[in-house]
Amino acid sequence: MTHTTERLQATYRVETPLSLEQAAATLAGEQSSGTFVAVPGESEELKRRFAARVEHVTPHETVESPSLPGGVAGERFQRGEITVSWSTENFGSNLPTIVSTLEGNLFELKAFTGLKLLDFEAPASLLEAFTGPRRGVEGCRALTGVHDRPMIGTIIKPSVGLSPDETAELVSPLIAAGIDFVKDDELMADPPHSPFNERVDAVMRLVNDHAERTGKRVMVAFNVSGDLDVMLRHYDKIAAAGGTCAMVSLNSVGLTAVKRLCEHGELAIHGHRNGWGMLTRHPYLGVEFPAYQKLWRLAGVDQLHVNGIANKFWEPDDSVVRSIASCLEPLGATRPVLPVVSSGQWGGQAFETYRRTKTVDLLYMAGGGVMAHPGGPAAGVVALQQAWAAAADGGTLIETAAANAEFRQSVERFGDEESKRLVAGGTR
Amino acid sequence: MTHTTERLQATYRVETPLSLEQAAATLAGEQSSGTFVAVPGESEELKRRFAARVEHVTPHETVESPSLPGGVAGERFQRGEITVSWSTENFGSNLPTIVSTLEGNLFELKAFTGLKLLDFEAPASLLEAFTGPRRGVEGCRALTGVHDRPMIGTIIKPSVGLSPDETAELVSPLIAAGIDFVKDDELMADPPHSPFNERVDAVMRLVNDHAERTGKRVMVAFNVSGDLDVMLRHYDKIAAAGGTCAMVSLNSVGLTAVKRLCEHGELAIHGHRNGWGMLTRHPYLGVEFPAYQKLWRLAGVDQLHVNGIANKFWEPDDSVVRSIASCLEPLGATRPVLPVVSSGQWGGQAFETYRRTKTVDLLYMAGGGVMAHPGGPAAGVVALQQAWAAAADGGTLIETAAANAEFRQSVERFGDEESKRLVAGGTR
Repeated sequence: MTHTTERLQATYRVETPLSLEQAAATLAGEQSSGTFVAVPGESEELKRRFAARVEHVTPHETVESPSLPGGVAGERFQRGEITVSWSTENFGSNLPTIVSTLEGNLFELKAFTGLKLLDFEAPASLLEAFTGPRRGVEGCRALTGVHDRPMIGTIIKPSVGLSPDETAELVSPLIAAGIDFVKDDELMADPPHSPFNERVDAVMRLVNDHAERTGKRVMVAFNVSGDLDVMLRHYDKIAAAGGTCAMVSLNSVGLTAVKRLCEHGELAIHGHRNGWGMLTRHPYLGVEFPAYQKLWRLAGVDQLHVNGIANKFWEPDDSVVRSIASCLEPLGATRPVLPVVSSGQWGGQAFETYRRTKTVDLLYMAGGGVMAHPGGPAAGVVALQQAWAAAADGGTLIETAAANAEFRQSVERFGDEESKRLVAGGTR
Repeated sequence: MTHTTERLQATYRVETPLSLEQAAATLAGEQSSGTFVAVPGESEELKRRFAARVEHVTPHETVESPSLPGGVAGERFQRGEITVSWSTENFGSNLPTIVSTLEGNLFELKAFTGLKLLDFEAPASLLEAFTGPRRGVEGCRALTGVHDRPMIGTIIKPSVGLSPDETAELVSPLIAAGIDFVKDDELMADPPHSPFNERVDAVMRLVNDHAERTGKRVMVAFNVSGDLDVMLRHYDKIAAAGGTCAMVSLNSVGLTAVKRLCEHGELAIHGHRNGWGMLTRHPYLGVEFPAYQKLWRLAGVDQLHVNGIANKFWEPDDSVVRSIASCLEPLGATRPVLPVVSSGQWGGQAFETYRRTKTVDLLYMAGGGVMAHPGGPAAGVVALQQAWAAAADGGTLIETAAANAEFRQSVERFGDEESKRLVAGGTR
């Protein structure tokens, strides 16, 4: 591979009725000159310099029926991986145009009955054009004053219907219990029953009071998703009220506006990935998380959702573990993005999460796991702290339940049958 | 259905190992309060007012294996359609939050092994909050001076490597031949070899000269996709140079920045949907075009890609025909968005396109079909004009080829074997 340092290189999992080589060449053609016949002006010199290039082809198994409709007819369908590269001259540091190159019309091609972007590698010269997360893991630790353990967070539930004052009433005991982070739900930003500014004022009054008394400033991620000018105004409101974080629905708002938001000031940006299931749930369509997180990291997002171990959603644990690792991997000189572990979490998963990831560089979120704790939300926070202190110290769920009343209540409420039985047995 | 006028209603094609009713209820729960246990503060009164509601459930066939991985285990999987509604109180006219509601975490649910948003209906009170396309079909006709026939367009190819002057050299004969519309390729916006401002200056000099001499102002869609501030600056550059259109890669740039761009001034916004295949190619994952076009129309996009009849991509003709119809359907008081027909088009498809859609409210684009015409690009434009004049008049491909030399050359170059044989036979 010559000139790799000046080329963007992407790897795809594919399925094709053609040979892998033919299919890869079709992709490379579509994603450089991109028409169905040779056209005037397309000299050999231009082609050499600007055409996409097939770098590797690795065959896997063949299958009898296609994963996606609309492909060229075939008897069998070859699966495999292909790697294609482009000169960065084509797009420079234009992030949406990089996305159009990596993820554009290629999903429309009849040459493929399956296509998924697995990952991409950008040369140093390209990465240097991006600031990346302004805060990242270390910056969020500095803002929350939490070190050597995961930041513990929760979501304000129910997501709909509460007034600003009712929201503040829910937040108050969480702050008192020592929570590090609270976030809005993605389904609510600035509705009539909870106007954004009033919600910020009501909640930040509590956060500021607590910070003055204790020195601990809870990070609250207010959902700014909306029209651009409103997003920026809401961002400014948060900053003026003493807040440290803004939340945005990445897929709904989109890359360009999120990048603009990240560049706007000093707040940490909490990236909610709702809609991500559509982009990744099929093994032969869409995008895998290692590629996805790089794009949002280049845009400057500081915190990014990754689901969690034994989550309530469809995603397998292996995928979650890989996502956490990829958030923390180097990407040029950019800061790592803080993985946000959530979905069906209640503290019981801390042990497996730590065993498999060996990191505490996490924002560990429990919604119901905190808010529906039998001892109330404050006990829910304490239970999570107990779980993580023990997990990072090599403890087990059973030992931790035996030694800590709040965590024990969590197991009794949220644990699986086996955990419940073991915990009940341990005290007999 | 009570209070439908104040509810947003969405219909999904689904597949589930559960009963359709259970699956629908799970979706409604996730997309309102959204946690795995009942939580404090979630009173019956709040639930009644804010919870999502299942409106209809229509069973279809069952299948033996799941379309998507990660679902609840099952013996058989029930397919069908479900309709869910939300009070618009939850999100108001916040477009990204509407998207998070319609397309958010629901794709992650284990209750579904298939889920595709088919369409949604917004109440008049919600639609009124959106201006929609500032130009739309009629506005683009006014800007180009083209009436009673499709606007004819082409793409500057090759998409990469040409300097501004070389680009202008390609555009010059197209303008002379009477083309209505020219666009950049989505893979190139502002690269070092073709700086945006220089390209606009080089091309607009020709457009302005031609407009002064003939009164016909060719619409050129310059690709502004990029960082927000750059997009707006490039938009202003186009307007200052006498241009009438800016192109943007919708999926790569995202909804919020595109809406901001649409609100910026008087240019028509050409919406390129590259990446759309990822969102729609699987029948049980993602989004169908009727829903997709509504979101971009509410954002204000004036022109939207729909592929074309017998396109080079995977999409069947039926789907293309439905997309064209949905762009032109009423959506409150918003203007229709101009359907951009493209992909493997050369004029031969004009006959079937007109027969099936009965509309000439189209921007009909041919890339290779113009640029690689045997008589050169100018002859390619003439051939397209001949094809559409005949098609809208009820003519056939064979008659049109017999009567028009340029279109005949198109058939000889781009037609299928049967067309070529018939056209050859017709002159024997």
